[in-house]
Amino acid sequence: MEPVTTVRRVRFFDTTLRDGEQAPGNAMTPDQKLHMALRLEALGVDCVEAGFPASSPSDFEATRHISRNLSRARFATFSRTSRQDVDVAVEAGGVNNHEVQMVATGSDIHLRHKRGIGRQQAIAEVTDTVAHASALGIHHISVGIEDASRGEDDLLHALTESALEAGADCIILADTTGCMTPDEYGELVAKVRRWAPPPVRVSTHCHDDFGLSLANALAGLLAGADEVQVTLGGIGERAGNTPLEELAALLAYKGETLCLRTTIELTSMYETYTVLRKMINLEEPRNKPIFGRYAFGTAAGIHQQGMLSNPATYEFVEPARFGRQRSLLVGRHSGRAILRHLLQEIGVEVDEEQLNALYQRHIADRVGSDSEDLAAVRRRLQGELLSSGTTTRTPA
Amino acid sequence: MEPVTTVRRVRFFDTTLRDGEQAPGNAMTPDQKLHMALRLEALGVDCVEAGFPASSPSDFEATRHISRNLSRARFATFSRTSRQDVDVAVEAGGVNNHEVQMVATGSDIHLRHKRGIGRQQAIAEVTDTVAHASALGIHHISVGIEDASRGEDDLLHALTESALEAGADCIILADTTGCMTPDEYGELVAKVRRWAPPPVRVSTHCHDDFGLSLANALAGLLAGADEVQVTLGGIGERAGNTPLEELAALLAYKGETLCLRTTIELTSMYETYTVLRKMINLEEPRNKPIFGRYAFGTAAGIHQQGMLSNPATYEFVEPARFGRQRSLLVGRHSGRAILRHLLQEIGVEVDEEQLNALYQRHIADRVGSDSEDLAAVRRRLQGELLSSGTTTRTPA
Repeated sequence: MEPVTTVRRVRFFDTTLRDGEQAPGNAMTPDQKLHMALRLEALGVDCVEAGFPASSPSDFEATRHISRNLSRARFATFSRTSRQDVDVAVEAGGVNNHEVQMVATGSDIHLRHKRGIGRQQAIAEVTDTVAHASALGIHHISVGIEDASRGEDDLLHALTESALEAGADCIILADTTGCMTPDEYGELVAKVRRWAPPPVRVSTHCHDDFGLSLANALAGLLAGADEVQVTLGGIGERAGNTPLEELAALLAYKGETLCLRTTIELTSMYETYTVLRKMINLEEPRNKPIFGRYAFGTAAGIHQQGMLSNPATYEFVEPARFGRQRSLLVGRHSGRAILRHLLQEIGVEVDEEQLNALYQRHIADRVGSDSEDLAAVRRRLQGELLSSGTTTRTPA
Repeated sequence: MEPVTTVRRVRFFDTTLRDGEQAPGNAMTPDQKLHMALRLEALGVDCVEAGFPASSPSDFEATRHISRNLSRARFATFSRTSRQDVDVAVEAGGVNNHEVQMVATGSDIHLRHKRGIGRQQAIAEVTDTVAHASALGIHHISVGIEDASRGEDDLLHALTESALEAGADCIILADTTGCMTPDEYGELVAKVRRWAPPPVRVSTHCHDDFGLSLANALAGLLAGADEVQVTLGGIGERAGNTPLEELAALLAYKGETLCLRTTIELTSMYETYTVLRKMINLEEPRNKPIFGRYAFGTAAGIHQQGMLSNPATYEFVEPARFGRQRSLLVGRHSGRAILRHLLQEIGVEVDEEQLNALYQRHIADRVGSDSEDLAAVRRRLQGELLSSGTTTRTPA
């Protein structure tokens, strides 16, 4: 008999509007946050983190709007391990459908240098605040262990145990400084998973300081995490967070191998990202996975030669699945293949000598670093060839 | 006795001026390429790929300049498995210090749809072109197996064997479409490593279509690769290549754990990237690892509270090692801690009520998404407080 392998559905906890929004340059108004929250819900995320209500009137108002307008997804709020923060969060969003995420202090370096408290107090705060949230009628209580990646084992164990005993149903392991490799983060998740077996959820929160936020989240999932905290486009503190779109794409293509699946709606992620990008004046990235301007474009002759015959030669990730279009561009690195293709489209026949002259003029002698789209080059070729009286034939 | 663990030095093969430069929008003049090549050499890369001489007069000229001006690093050229391409490369760069990298067709999909040839011909081309390069006096011959990540085992094996028999000293495994997970890429490298034991080099060439180009290169190194092909800032086809700076940073911090080390000069990578970025009009990224505008900046109250006490609370990757500066910014998510810090700098004492009023005006009521740097807020506070006659004391 074949071994039975369970394919697990990955939960997406979106923190675009909290960790993403709190990073420099990304501040949004409550109305903007509401708009984005509805779009994130439409993508199929399981939970939309609305903000940190106790931190500002603006986050309070955003939470109020979002809590009242989501129709399917859960919303979450961010709190310190403080009764007052939780009270404000509940005042803003009520108790229904509300996941209270509170941040526990997970390492001695944070205890000493940020909080100025000892381990016992950190643990007592968690116990007290979780119990308080529970008494208020909150059903979904997550304890996010900040700086867990630099946390000592006994502290992590005590925080996890206290959180679960007091009624938390989710432990989030934050690689707050982005200091871990995938192997290390996988081991951390596996360890805490043993202390917090299902139905408790274990969630990842990874930062990209080394460029490993996606690989670390993946390692966490493979080590037993149920959920990932992600942001659209990977926005967030410093180098950002695990990008929603990269993980969703990876699961869409590699789910079978990984025994993981996603229900994220892939085709509208790019449009949602574009709205976000314009809202916070984010630069348009040239080479970003899925979302980059040229993520599905090439100007290189060798690549174009393959693409014109079969796009699969240089495309594994397919643009159409992500609401995007393939683009072939003409630049100094293009070859004769793209010229032949354009001439065929126009319906013009040329001999080798004419082709070489066109190649020289339109490709080899190009000035500047920019590439041009096919339509522009086609128009220019057309004008030039027709005015020079080159033989034309009916387009193929 | 402790087991003896060898720490391996990772070779950096830089393809910024080839895979990076051939991508849309990134074309450079020969002079620009020479300038960048010297800067890349100064960073300590082992090999600078100059371009694809047979593809254009511009790449030919760039190769000529670069081959004559490097003083320490090797230079490489890109060729198809074609005697003619190699002849042009040698005409441009000579044979000394020249690594000829030729691209072999590594998958049936590429054989059928791009090349229109069979496996035997692909293998024969490799044998013939490697032998030709060797006969010309080239000492460093690399065979890059294109689309190796979708290549069938027997094809990969035959290409590797033929390349080595003909005299190649390096096999490059290209995940051309960026379709692999770290586990898959590690297995591919381990497999080819068995067919190509040292002193033959095995090199990685990873693309970022899923956002895993760094994690895949790392998996390749851990599986026995000696060398990585990288680009500065990760520029390159589609989503780009393994970023030089991310791998260098990772090795600098995690080398001991990984048993890998690097001699890349970390502090000037950012300056070199900035020159590149301006040269090719690349957007300034907000959140990119190491190079992002805010990679070492925060505006969030909780983070600032920690950072003001000890930067290590939220910094594992340290800005100074990368020629960058830490920045604390004032935004809507800042808290009272940063205000207290500024007031102390100015030498002004305020009571809680005044502090709350300042917090309201300068932080909570901020409009727009942008954060402001501390100096600007300090100046504004100073003007305001001095004109209102608030008690000042000697700055601390």
